[in-house]
Amino acid sequence: MQEKKTVQAIGYIRCDFKEKFGIPRQSGRASSLRAEIIFHAPYQCADAFRGIEEFSHLWLLFDFSKTEDKAFSPTVRPPRLGGNKRVGVFASRSPYRPNRIGLSCVKLVEVKKAENGSVSLVVSGADLLDGTPILDIKPYIPFTDCMIDATGGYASAHEHDRLEVDFPKSLLAQIPLDKQAGLLDCLADDPRPSYQNEPTRVYGMKFAEFEIKFQVCKKRLAVLSVEKVDNNLNIVL
Amino acid sequence: MQEKKTVQAIGYIRCDFKEKFGIPRQSGRASSLRAEIIFHAPYQCADAFRGIEEFSHLWLLFDFSKTEDKAFSPTVRPPRLGGNKRVGVFASRSPYRPNRIGLSCVKLVEVKKAENGSVSLVVSGADLLDGTPILDIKPYIPFTDCMIDATGGYASAHEHDRLEVDFPKSLLAQIPLDKQAGLLDCLADDPRPSYQNEPTRVYGMKFAEFEIKFQVCKKRLAVLSVEKVDNNLNIVL
Repeated sequence: MQEKKTVQAIGYIRCDFKEKFGIPRQSGRASSLRAEIIFHAPYQCADAFRGIEEFSHLWLLFDFSKTEDKAFSPTVRPPRLGGNKRVGVFASRSPYRPNRIGLSCVKLVEVKKAENGSVSLVVSGADLLDGTPILDIKPYIPFTDCMIDATGGYASAHEHDRLEVDFPKSLLAQIPLDKQAGLLDCLADDPRPSYQNEPTRVYGMKFAEFEIKFQVCKKRLAVLSVEKVDNNLNIVL
Repeated sequence: MQEKKTVQAIGYIRCDFKEKFGIPRQSGRASSLRAEIIFHAPYQCADAFRGIEEFSHLWLLFDFSKTEDKAFSPTVRPPRLGGNKRVGVFASRSPYRPNRIGLSCVKLVEVKKAENGSVSLVVSGADLLDGTPILDIKPYIPFTDCMIDATGGYASAHEHDRLEVDFPKSLLAQIPLDKQAGLLDCLADDPRPSYQNEPTRVYGMKFAEFEIKFQVCKKRLAVLSVEKVDNNLNIVL
């Protein structure tokens, strides 16, 4: 017998990723990127977060809610392997997995209290789509979670690959100051599918209320334009 | 609106903890302790684990299935704080939490293939009760999961507290050789509720098919007896 149970979102994330393209491939890749976790009642009460400021990092358990519901496939093609090599789904962090629960480590920036006493959490480094339902928040406990002797298989191969980002000042000035570092981080992480290498191709990435167009040649990403668009895809929960 | 979804066990763990008492308080505390993860169809196929041997550590997402179903309480009393101080549930790893999903890091010891092609995983360091339903297996990816600058709040305070274990050879000899190191590890981790300090009290801990009786005085745990008992609480899934 395989037990079933029902889980329910305790809240959701509010961030600048309005579509999948551009989201860092793992948490922490764009460490200056801010996001806010909003909680549903009764989880928004200050007591539920008592002592959380003592922890520098948190785990988010979340629902890959925007992942198409496909039949179980034992293998996936991770972008990090160029998208053309298959590995087992349990040897990957792919969203296309049984139960579709995601796991990401973020930095805790601020425990925010609204006037009505509701608590929300400001975090950095999240790799989640705006509106993603959150299933749990856990403190990151170094002595059980930080495995300094761990080895990482294929996922470590491109760990230090970063692009040099050429973002003309006049264009960057259009982005609100508090979002600039986060956006630069995401671009440096190379938002392209990793099996693409077409220097003439123009990519468009939605970020906050903007569309950023860019090209990539070798290890250099050049921003071509920044346009204000209606990315009003906020999912109201 | 709070989205609901149904999740289902992909398998379960087979290990020597037949009751809650004695289970290490976090994964990795008893690193030599072996356990086996058995998968339900269709997840037991070898393809689903292709490449997993490249990772030294894995995450287990599991259902705290034996935790009483209580109404939401915003605070809990972690044993690590002596059981008399309350912290927010989201500042703890307590099982008494919304959605009751647990997260543990284990070492991958072996990818076992049965004659019929079914795969199971032998792991070490798990802090789960025998029969616990597993919801997901993910590879531990050092560059996103190993936060070497993380600080750990109250949970780090007793990190290096270990007991010296006095286990008479004649008694230890009753325990199968491959389980001795794991049991010694668990005892050294101090299975008592941390707010107890009663040198004359005799504790009984169930482990595999044994009951181990011991006393603790200061930093020394003395095993008094080992008895073969019927711990036949294996949960058939």
